[in-house]
Amino acid sequence: MNPDYESVQAAAERIGPFINHTPVITSEKLDIIAGCSLFFKCENLQKAGAFKSRGAVNAIMSLGAPALAKGVATHSSGNHGAALARAAGLKNTTAYIVVPDNARQVKQDAILSYGGQVILCEPTLEDREAKLEVVLKETGATFVHPYDQEEIIAGQGTAMLELVQQVQGLDIVIVPVGGGGLLAGCCLVAEHEQIKIIGAEPEGADDACRSVDTGELVLRHTPKTICDGLLTTLGTRNFEIIRDKVDSMLLVSDQETIEAMSLVWTRMKLIIEPSSAVTLAVVLRNPGLFEGKRVGLLLTGGNVDLTDLPF
Amino acid sequence: MNPDYESVQAAAERIGPFINHTPVITSEKLDIIAGCSLFFKCENLQKAGAFKSRGAVNAIMSLGAPALAKGVATHSSGNHGAALARAAGLKNTTAYIVVPDNARQVKQDAILSYGGQVILCEPTLEDREAKLEVVLKETGATFVHPYDQEEIIAGQGTAMLELVQQVQGLDIVIVPVGGGGLLAGCCLVAEHEQIKIIGAEPEGADDACRSVDTGELVLRHTPKTICDGLLTTLGTRNFEIIRDKVDSMLLVSDQETIEAMSLVWTRMKLIIEPSSAVTLAVVLRNPGLFEGKRVGLLLTGGNVDLTDLPF
Repeated sequence: MNPDYESVQAAAERIGPFINHTPVITSEKLDIIAGCSLFFKCENLQKAGAFKSRGAVNAIMSLGAPALAKGVATHSSGNHGAALARAAGLKNTTAYIVVPDNARQVKQDAILSYGGQVILCEPTLEDREAKLEVVLKETGATFVHPYDQEEIIAGQGTAMLELVQQVQGLDIVIVPVGGGGLLAGCCLVAEHEQIKIIGAEPEGADDACRSVDTGELVLRHTPKTICDGLLTTLGTRNFEIIRDKVDSMLLVSDQETIEAMSLVWTRMKLIIEPSSAVTLAVVLRNPGLFEGKRVGLLLTGGNVDLTDLPF
Repeated sequence: MNPDYESVQAAAERIGPFINHTPVITSEKLDIIAGCSLFFKCENLQKAGAFKSRGAVNAIMSLGAPALAKGVATHSSGNHGAALARAAGLKNTTAYIVVPDNARQVKQDAILSYGGQVILCEPTLEDREAKLEVVLKETGATFVHPYDQEEIIAGQGTAMLELVQQVQGLDIVIVPVGGGGLLAGCCLVAEHEQIKIIGAEPEGADDACRSVDTGELVLRHTPKTICDGLLTTLGTRNFEIIRDKVDSMLLVSDQETIEAMSLVWTRMKLIIEPSSAVTLAVVLRNPGLFEGKRVGLLLTGGNVDLTDLPF
C-alpha cells in the first residue's frame, strides 16, 4: 500500500522520541549569492548522520513483538544500514545488513558500532539478493527495504513535516533523489501544504528524471556520479508518488555539486555529503526559478571520508 | 564598569533580531565515549561563523547616532574583525579593522565581504596600536575592544543565557579562553544559574590559567598553539570576573585538541575550529570530573582553512 499524508503524521508521532528534531539553518551570505531565501533542513545532524534514521526508526517501531524478536535485515552500502542497525538497537533486536565487499570500511564500521551484523556480498545485484535471501531464511528476520516501503517513505517524509512547522511560508522545497523514498515522503507533505516540490538529481544518475519525463520507470541504468547516496534506482512505490506529485525534476553536474558542497562547508560550517549538495546546486544553476522565493533544501546526510574530500 | 547578569539580559534583548539563536546539538556516540551527557552550543553556526557576532552586535546597538555616524574601529586577526564589520553594516556605518599583515587572506576577505575596511599593520603590538591610533584620530570612530569591554562581555554571555534556556539541569559548562570575553560573560550567567563553569585553555597559551592560579594577571607571554582564536592575553576586566567566578581552569595539549576536533567533525558533522575543540578535549582528558554529568560545551567558531586541516 502506498502511504499518504496521514502515514507521515503517524510516523512523526511514532519516531519523535528516537530521532533528532534537526535545526533549520540559514546564511545571509548564501542568500545573497543565490538571490533568494534559503532554509537548510539539517538532516546531516540527524542520528547516525542522515535522514535514513527517520524511516528506519519508523519501520522498527511499526513491528510487533514476535517480528522484533527475530530481528530485521536489509541490503545497504550506505546510510540506511547504519540507521537500521541503530534503530534495531533501540528495541534490543538485531539488524543483519548485507553490504557489498567494495563498500568503504567506514560504512561497515558504522554498522558494527551500532551493534549491527555485517554480511558481505559481491557488488552485484544477484549476489546481494542471494545473500539477503539466505539471511532472511536462516534468521526469520523482517526485510526492511532501504527506500521502497510504506514505513520508510512515511518516516522520511517527517523531515518535510518538521521543516514546514519550522519555517512559515515556504514557496518551494528541493529534495535529492536516489531511490526516491525521501522525495516521495516529502511529496506527500508538499501536496498537503500546497508547496512546490522539486527533485534534484545528478546528471550521471538521472533515472528518476527520465522515469518522470517518460512516465515509464527506468529500471536499468549505470550511474556515475560523486553522489554516492544517489546511485540507487528509483523504487516502484516512490515512482508512483513522485510521478503524480512532483512539480519538476532538475539535473546538476558533479562539478556544480562540488562547488555547492564547498559553499555549504565554508559558509555554513556544516559537513554535508555530495548527495546533499545537489539541492543548492539546483538553485545556483537555475537562479531565475528561485529569485526572491523562500526555498527549503533538504540536506540529507553528512557521512563523508574526511581524508578524501573533492576540494 | 564591569558588566553583571542584568547586562547580559539586556544584551540578549538588544541583539536578538540580529544574531542566530544557535542550536544545541547532542551525539549518542560522543556521550558513550565521554561517559557523560554532552550538550554542544553551536556558535560555529553563528552569523559570521563565531560567537563574536554577539558582542559586536551588542556594541554597535549600544552606540548613539552621533557615534554611529563616525563608524567603529578595532584590531583583530580573527573572528572579531569580521563580526564587527557585519554588525556595523546592520547600522549602515563603517568598521575600520586593523589587521596584521601576516593574517590569513581568508580573514581579510571575510572583513571585506561584510563591507569593512582593512588597515594592514606589522604583526607587532606597537605597530598595531600606532595604526589604530591613527585610524581613531582620522575618522573619529569609536574603538570596540575585541574582548575587554562591557558591551562585548555582556554580548558574549548571551550564548550561555541561550544555552541554559535550551537545556535544563546542566551541571557544568566548559568555555574556551583566549582574551576571556566569552568566559567572563558566561561566568555571569553561570553564577546566577548556580551552574559550575570551567575555562579550557591550550597548554601552549596558558596565561589565563596562570593568572587565575597566581591571582596576578599575566601580561606578557609567547603563546604557541594550533588554537589561533586563543592566542590573545586575558583582558583586565575579564580577569577580575573570571578570577572571582570560575570554578576551575583546565589545560589541554594541541594533540588532544586535534583528536577532539576530529571527533566533532566525524561524529557530529560540524565544522569547528581548533579553539572550539578544547572544550571536548577537557572532558576526554578528565573523565572522572564529568562522569554521569550534564555538561554544556561552547563551540566558539567554525572558521578554518579547508585546504590546511590538522588531520
